[in-house]
Amino acid sequence: MQKIAVLGATGAVGQEFVMSLNKHPWFELTEIASSARSAGKKYVDALRDPVSGILRWHNPESVPEYIQDMVISKIEDVNPDKFDLIFTALNSDDAQTIEPSFARSIPVISTAAAFRYENDVPILIPGINDEHTELLDIQKKNKDWAGYIAPLPNCTTTGLAITLKPIIDKYGVKSVFMTSLQALSGAGRSPGVIALDIMDNVIPYIPKEEEKVQIETKKILGKLNQRSILPNNIKVSCTCMRVPVSDGHTESVFVETKDPVDPDLVKKEMLNFSKNVSIKELPTAPEDYILVHDDPTRPQPRVDREINDGMTTVVGRLRKDTVFENGIKYVLLSHNEKMGSAKGAVLLAELLKSKKMI
Amino acid sequence: MQKIAVLGATGAVGQEFVMSLNKHPWFELTEIASSARSAGKKYVDALRDPVSGILRWHNPESVPEYIQDMVISKIEDVNPDKFDLIFTALNSDDAQTIEPSFARSIPVISTAAAFRYENDVPILIPGINDEHTELLDIQKKNKDWAGYIAPLPNCTTTGLAITLKPIIDKYGVKSVFMTSLQALSGAGRSPGVIALDIMDNVIPYIPKEEEKVQIETKKILGKLNQRSILPNNIKVSCTCMRVPVSDGHTESVFVETKDPVDPDLVKKEMLNFSKNVSIKELPTAPEDYILVHDDPTRPQPRVDREINDGMTTVVGRLRKDTVFENGIKYVLLSHNEKMGSAKGAVLLAELLKSKKMI
Amino acid sequence: MQKIAVLGATGAVGQEFVMSLNKHPWFELTEIASSARSAGKKYVDALRDPVSGILRWHNPESVPEYIQDMVISKIEDVNPDKFDLIFTALNSDDAQTIEPSFARSIPVISTAAAFRYENDVPILIPGINDEHTELLDIQKKNKDWAGYIAPLPNCTTTGLAITLKPIIDKYGVKSVFMTSLQALSGAGRSPGVIALDIMDNVIPYIPKEEEKVQIETKKILGKLNQRSILPNNIKVSCTCMRVPVSDGHTESVFVETKDPVDPDLVKKEMLNFSKNVSIKELPTAPEDYILVHDDPTRPQPRVDREINDGMTTVVGRLRKDTVFENGIKYVLLSHNEKMGSAKGAVLLAELLKSKKMI
Amino acid sequence: MQKIAVLGATGAVGQEFVMSLNKHPWFELTEIASSARSAGKKYVDALRDPVSGILRWHNPESVPEYIQDMVISKIEDVNPDKFDLIFTALNSDDAQTIEPSFARSIPVISTAAAFRYENDVPILIPGINDEHTELLDIQKKNKDWAGYIAPLPNCTTTGLAITLKPIIDKYGVKSVFMTSLQALSGAGRSPGVIALDIMDNVIPYIPKEEEKVQIETKKILGKLNQRSILPNNIKVSCTCMRVPVSDGHTESVFVETKDPVDPDLVKKEMLNFSKNVSIKELPTAPEDYILVHDDPTRPQPRVDREINDGMTTVVGRLRKDTVFENGIKYVLLSHNEKMGSAKGAVLLAELLKSKKMI
Repeated sequence: MQKIAVLGATGAVGQEFVMSLNKHPWFELTEIASSARSAGKKYVDALRDPVSGILRWHNPESVPEYIQDMVISKIEDVNPDKFDLIFTALNSDDAQTIEPSFARSIPVISTAAAFRYENDVPILIPGINDEHTELLDIQKKNKDWAGYIAPLPNCTTTGLAITLKPIIDKYGVKSVFMTSLQALSGAGRSPGVIALDIMDNVIPYIPKEEEKVQIETKKILGKLNQRSILPNNIKVSCTCMRVPVSDGHTESVFVETKDPVDPDLVKKEMLNFSKNVSIKELPTAPEDYILVHDDPTRPQPRVDREINDGMTTVVGRLRKDTVFENGIKYVLLSHNEKMGSAKGAVLLAELLKSKKMI
Repeated sequence: MQKIAVLGATGAVGQEFVMSLNKHPWFELTEIASSARSAGKKYVDALRDPVSGILRWHNPESVPEYIQDMVISKIEDVNPDKFDLIFTALNSDDAQTIEPSFARSIPVISTAAAFRYENDVPILIPGINDEHTELLDIQKKNKDWAGYIAPLPNCTTTGLAITLKPIIDKYGVKSVFMTSLQALSGAGRSPGVIALDIMDNVIPYIPKEEEKVQIETKKILGKLNQRSILPNNIKVSCTCMRVPVSDGHTESVFVETKDPVDPDLVKKEMLNFSKNVSIKELPTAPEDYILVHDDPTRPQPRVDREINDGMTTVVGRLRKDTVFENGIKYVLLSHNEKMGSAKGAVLLAELLKSKKMI
Repeated sequence: MQKIAVLGATGAVGQEFVMSLNKHPWFELTEIASSARSAGKKYVDALRDPVSGILRWHNPESVPEYIQDMVISKIEDVNPDKFDLIFTALNSDDAQTIEPSFARSIPVISTAAAFRYENDVPILIPGINDEHTELLDIQKKNKDWAGYIAPLPNCTTTGLAITLKPIIDKYGVKSVFMTSLQALSGAGRSPGVIALDIMDNVIPYIPKEEEKVQIETKKILGKLNQRSILPNNIKVSCTCMRVPVSDGHTESVFVETKDPVDPDLVKKEMLNFSKNVSIKELPTAPEDYILVHDDPTRPQPRVDREINDGMTTVVGRLRKDTVFENGIKYVLLSHNEKMGSAKGAVLLAELLKSKKMI
Repeated sequence: MQKIAVLGATGAVGQEFVMSLNKHPWFELTEIASSARSAGKKYVDALRDPVSGILRWHNPESVPEYIQDMVISKIEDVNPDKFDLIFTALNSDDAQTIEPSFARSIPVISTAAAFRYENDVPILIPGINDEHTELLDIQKKNKDWAGYIAPLPNCTTTGLAITLKPIIDKYGVKSVFMTSLQALSGAGRSPGVIALDIMDNVIPYIPKEEEKVQIETKKILGKLNQRSILPNNIKVSCTCMRVPVSDGHTESVFVETKDPVDPDLVKKEMLNFSKNVSIKELPTAPEDYILVHDDPTRPQPRVDREINDGMTTVVGRLRKDTVFENGIKYVLLSHNEKMGSAKGAVLLAELLKSKKMI
């Protein structure tokens, strides 16, 4: 068993780490650390809101027993030598200084944006750009670190990049328009979205989100050259909104392809890709990497987000686009806290371990 | 005062007619008619759900006194000779047979889709394509009717066509991608959307909606020739979704223009258009035809839908598009039951009356 | 395996029957029947709303494979001789005529109210009033039937009667005030509660609900005498409301006891009762019949309703009452479609079978 | 015009003060003060959430122009000599030290709980216990202050006390059981209730709320003796819950009376009381102080909360209780931020001014 620490364990993403590592066959979570405010408390006590008394635990299953009474460390007290791997669920500012201090010694898998746009840092989605993991070795050399920082993309990027990949491979993609309807849990839980702001409402803006998706999609789908990633030359334009849905980002996507496309062929391509995806034997991999609905009323976040425990990207409404000469449009659903975040990070850890990089 | 009848007075749109005609300076609603099920009942009694006992009245203000005890007629008993104008809020199948039977005698302003796609029928948005009203005269001649059928567009088309108009006029538009986040009231109230279907959810499909918006936008923005409308040659692609919002359709729009554009100039163009819109002196016209927010978190449906009593199209997030060489993107909000439906129909009636066509 | 038919299989309760009987160790669902409207269709096709196209399936898990393509019979075509037991999820009017026609031949377990208040009909909650099952034999003789009608209580009664039982047994109960906050699924799904009626709202009235709870609670907790149930002489007063919650009825309960009580002792009594409940070895029985939270923010419907797959009554906020000389107050949560309805009916069938009454 | 300052102007209650004092005929809001965090900012800028950028303004109408650019003072910089009256919307801890420092010089009307339970402090609801205002003079003498602290009750107490008053006056009241379904805005807005905590949920606990309602109701309905209030000897027991409703507290009330009662007579009594209520000529007083619905589906918070701009207590479901020998039960709705808070405070100020106490 590899020893694991999670930094930022009490927030929405941290909670998913706690769930994803519960009874994991390869990884054992042995230390959790947080900001000074929570340090020294038992995990369940730190989850409780001091004003309302509500347990801020956001998961249909209860807090796993193994973690309930684990005392939270201060991040600066975590000794990297005791671990094989660190997962971080920090905000970007904290990640900026904390992640390198650990990467000096051991691999750090990060859900934060802090290092995603560095030249020698790949943005990794297991099954999509596994070959970019090689950039981690270059990073280690560049920085003279024993470890590395391996970030996941923003949770809104994940489903988009996953669904574009089989289309690019077969038909080529020129441009993409995407409008997201993002879930509340994507905003975290401290405090996250206020009920009065979102009830009976849509917020048409999420700070910095669109820029992240636009840049990350190109980098993920880009080519590794000797010392960095050459971004894919697709053009991407996004509008990102918040809707009153607890979990699961829905995205409306319009894609211009290089070659002529047909919805049935794209469906076939997606399912083929899903069937042969590289990571299918890893413990956290879903039975279906991509699932395509013919029912036009799907995907729906409440109905489809928990399929294969949130690790499947669900596609529906595949149809010919009416603007592009060559193009299709579709709707996708991706679980922002599972495949799009903590559980996707665990899958990445499994991939890296299978490549002997952990 | 012109005498008015409303056909289909108990549904969501019918209720807005009842509100919009309350104390109207030019129009007096003197008869309401509905399906056989409601006929013979007082208006308030017909609004009450027989199972739950709930009054299905969907408006912050109470049922106006003038209408509470008005007895609902059977549609086939309505005598057109007693009226100057008929408003209809029928479903499309009923409209198909009922509307012509009245148009033989008097003008019919319709919120139904039944005749929108006929050659000699314009789709009218007051302030956008007033010149298309001339087609009503051709229609009268063609059919040898004393009246005509004048339909409004689908409620999702309204805000899109209104915001495209000033851009087309100045910069030309080549293509449009639109994703809508549509309100519950757009699905009507009998029964409309079931709570269990939409709570914590998004439904990514509204039957026939996308086709309507795609066709209607082109027709509304088209050119009147001698006997029909030549559709505008812009290309339009839509994905229409339902979200848990009571009123107000939010739309994410990406526009490719012919000429180079700039968000500030587009804003100026929109505000200019708004300031000089043809219908601004009519009783139901809003103070602002289009309103443009600089605050990136706007428009929000709950916050902005009631501005100028739901007659204003609210735009926000105007910014340069990142795919099109010449293009912008924005978010719009349009009140689907007010400007997008009954109240827009009353505004159209005012326009037609001011043109002596009623 | 006993052969089972479900009458009324497409509604909310019918769907829970379908789930509860999936891979059941003793029962095999071999026929489903519904109103003429659905008859002749495959089960999944009958679930689809004809207007919106949405699959009206209300369960986090998918429609089980065994039932997807089963063709729905007309109720009048169901041959009782082919079954050991009938479950009904009919509305009360239909139940009135249909249930006796089957009870003539075989046992009928009903979720409808039609016969609950007959002298020779018990209202059964497995684990609470198992001895009332004897009244079914009297019923059979009275009616000269081979079967019987065994109804469950209204879903709002279930949790109340379950939590009162241990208090009555130990301290005696004089009077009860209960206010319910009932879930949407309790109103069924055809059409059930309209989204526009309940969003950002509470409906303070559910037709006939309060009378049902008041009468049923006394009957369930009453004494079987030779030919009927002598109702318990507790007094009960209820106010029943609908809230925007999908599943799980929350109830605020104030109880006046005969003897002095103490919250800690009541908790102990409840847990003791739970531990020793009669039905704990049956296949559908939960691990905890009653669960008592010390955390004052519990029970919460979204968090606690699925505990033990909805078969546990969850209690919290147990504290001394401030009005009654002897009294306590608490909040309870009961899953209205599981323990309170279809799944509770399956548990009842198991109890009856274990008593050789099926 | 009397000069007014509001302390704590940016929160939910503070915002209602800003609205209630907009164009007030007697009062002019000339200074707003807040915590150090907001001080020095313009009002609209202080309302904006620093993370999401959302304007935390919770009112269908826009921020009034008169206040938009008003710069927020530090509370300690507010000079009481410049004002005739201070309104406070502080949390209880801050109120504890800040309110006396102002009451030394001028009247302070408070929505905080800090001083409500002091002997020489009345808890005032205009129209219910106007005679308790005399205690303010005693308070001034006791403390040797030029002003006084006059607190309103907790927002959940207001509707309960208002509806009990006419029943007490006519029939006497022995005991009351109340379960509240409280709105989100009652929890304030910094941060208030988190969307993920309350969506599809009920929280059955609000810290300290029940104790407040139980004590305050008795004090408000008590008798003034020479130096304090002798609490009414009614017994009160409450359970307070949070529901996913934006505004408007719904309360389910069971009342045991001394004399026999009848729902029709209670209705008459309430309407009579409403008609003759002392404060009806004051500027902020509603047309109906109490409104009683015969429609059993009312009151509903979304439908009824804005009646008379939130100043009316709306009653429905008046019916005979089934437990008490003499008793009734009903449901009430009270706008927690208007009559139950800031706007009720303005009404109180009007009452005190009309009594020459300001």
